[in-house]
Formats: sequence, structure tokens, C-alpha cells
Amino acid sequence: MPYINVRILDDGVTAEQKAEVIAGITDIMVRVLNKTPESTHVVIDEVPLDNWGNRGKQVSELRKQPKA
Amino acid sequence: MPYINVRILDDGVTAEQKAEVIAGITDIMVRVLNKTPESTHVVIDEVPLDNWGNRGKQVSELRKQPKA
Amino acid sequence: MPYINVRILDDGVTAEQKAEVIAGITDIMVRVLNKTPESTHVVIDEVPLDNWGNRGKQVSELRKQPKA
Amino acid sequence: MPYINVRILDDGVTAEQKAEVIAGITDIMVRVLNKTPESTHVVIDEVPLDNWGNRGKQVSELRKQPKA
Amino acid sequence: MPYINVRILDDGVTAEQKAEVIAGITDIMVRVLNKTPESTHVVIDEVPLDNWGNRGKQVSELRKQPKA
Amino acid sequence: MPYINVRILDDGVTAEQKAEVIAGITDIMVRVLNKTPESTHVVIDEVPLDNWGNRGKQVSELRKQPKA
Repeated sequence: MPYINVRILDDGVTAEQKAEVIAGITDIMVRVLNKTPESTHVVIDEVPLDNWGNRGKQVSELRKQPKA
Repeated sequence: MPYINVRILDDGVTAEQKAEVIAGITDIMVRVLNKTPESTHVVIDEVPLDNWGNRGKQVSELRKQPKA
Repeated sequence: MPYINVRILDDGVTAEQKAEVIAGITDIMVRVLNKTPESTHVVIDEVPLDNWGNRGKQVSELRKQPKA
Repeated sequence: MPYINVRILDDGVTAEQKAEVIAGITDIMVRVLNKTPESTHVVIDEVPLDNWGNRGKQVSELRKQPKA
Repeated sequence: MPYINVRILDDGVTAEQKAEVIAGITDIMVRVLNKTPESTHVVIDEVPLDNWGNRGKQVSELRKQPKA
Repeated sequence: MPYINVRILDDGVTAEQKAEVIAGITDIMVRVLNKTPESTHVVIDEVPLDNWGNRGKQVSELRKQPKA
């Protein structure tokens, strides 16, 4: 039954990384919560940098600022 | 007030099918829960096959496996 | 694979009504999108009236206003 | 800690408008709930008009109807 | 059409604060995105401190640590 | 920036299990996606058995059926 929604920035995540995230999270559901792989759904959403805000600004803007 | 989010695979669902899903779910809210069509919002998200994991694998990978 | 999240007011919805919503939405996924009942998950969230806002006000406040 | 998900129609919202929504919502979290900008995440999802249903129809269809 | 989901810690937020958050976010949708109050839904979810994790730990645990 | 929402059944999951899920998922974000623990939020929702439907039925009903 677990449904896990992973929201990350649309930032060049590769298919292999997605596969590793899905496998890793499924393993945690099986190992820690005793769920089955068949009943575990992991859905990854990739959010454009213009559309994710932190510290009151778009990440696309934050990325333009010199590193502290 | 009902807000219904339908998350499905980005798998060639047609505009007509989306219309039928929206009409069908709205009808259930009206018939079963006595809600109005005006207050009922149905939002469909289509998720890339690389981004949906089940049984610890991406659906894009599962689709490559021979049928059991 | 469909995951459907139904967000409604915490307004005395009975177990029978929830069963009917789950059965109805699953039937739509099977009939219209050719999905299987086994892969279809329907999750109902019941939201307190203080926590749902429309027209800029909490539903708990809107319910105190005389009907138009 | 606040995570705010803003779901709107994919209807030509500009980067400037997104920036204003993010800044405005972050300000509310800081002013009203005493949260910090650093811990406040605002994520905007833009939904295709075919995929948002209200009054039992797709918004793309509703937009074809003459205004009441 | 906007649907805004505000996820915050279940941390003693008052009804008045919720009203202010709902009014404030609705005002932003009207002012910035030209939406109507009638079509704007704001839903607040309050998450138990045991159920929200940051820096790899539950907020309930983080709160036990001396302030840096 | 990752925000991960873990939806599971309200089925007696302990605080320790929640801590392990949060730590495990955060570790995956750090190891696989090169994110920081500070920017990673994991939120667990526990859904009543009456409110989660699979195979067209409530889990509360499925649990009454003899095991296949």
C-alpha cells in the first residue's frame, strides 16, 4: 500500500539515479515497514527551477546569486 | 469542495478518456457525497514511465520484461 | 498504477459512502483507462472544516453565514 | 518546515508572477505562522487545461462555451 | 481553479491564524494571478512532529536538541 | 529541496520505524541525488484503513477476507 511521492528539482536527474531512488525507497518500505515490493509505488515529480521557491525566491534566481 | 487528484502513467491517455474520467468522478461526488459539480475539481497528472516505480523498478524497465 | 487522492471535508462521510466512492472510482479506472483493480489505489483524506478555505474564508465560517 | 503546493492551470503564468506568488506566500508563513524563509518551500504545479476538470468537464471544454 | 495545499507542523496553529493564512493566500491568487475567490481552494494539513523529518531526523527529536 | 511524502496505512507504525524511514530516505537523497540533509523534508501521512481502497474495496474490508 505505500505510495511515496518524491518531489525534486528538474535538474538533470538521470534514469539510473531515478532507478536507484525507486529501488532504495522500496527496500526501506520492505525492510522497515514489512511491506511488499508489489504493493509499493514510488512516483518522482521533477519541478522546474522557476516553480520551486525557497527563502522567498525562485530557485532559478537563487542559483544566480554568488555562493555565500 | 472535493478535490480529486488522479495520478496515472503518461501512457497515451486521450482527451476523450480524460473527459470521461472527469465526468465519471464528478458524478460519483454528486451521487454518493451530495456535492455540486461546481465545487468539484478533478486534476489528472500524467507521470513519465521512468518516474513511476513499482516492485522496486521503473515501469519503463518492467515493460521490457517478458509477460509472466 | 493509478493512484487517486480524494480530498473532502471531514463532514460525517460514512464508511458505506467511502466504500461506494472507492468502488466507483476503481470501476472508472478499469472501464475507461483499462487498468486493473489490483493496481488501483484510492485514498480518501478528510479535512477539518477549519482547515479548508474557499472565497477567502474557512468553510467553518462560511457555514455560519445565512444561505444566499 | 512549511511546504506549500500551488496547483494552477497551465495558462501563461509568467516567471514574474511565479516570483510574486512565492514571495507573497513565504511572507504569510513568516508573518502569520512565525516560520523562517529558509524553511519555507513553495512549489507551483501548472496543469494542462485538458487535465483539470470542473462542473464535470475539462477546462479546455468549458473555455469553448459562451460566457454566461 | 487554484488549489493550494499548505502542509505545516501540528504545532498549535490557532483558528485565527488559519483564517489569516487562507485570506492571505486567496488575496495573492486574486491580486497576482487574477483568479476569483470563489474558484480558489486553500487546504491546510497539520502534520504530527513525529511524522515530519528534516536533517534525517523527526522534528520531535530535533526539538529535544539544544539550540545551536 | 527534495520533499518526499510517504503515504502509508494507519497500522501501528512506531516512532522508531518512522525515524528509520526518515533517516533511510534522507540518506538516499544525499547519496544518490547529492542533496543535503538540511534541505530534505520527509513527511509521513498515516491513512485510516477505511480510507484506503485497493481492488475496489476498503483495506478494512479486505482485511476481513480469508487469506488466499
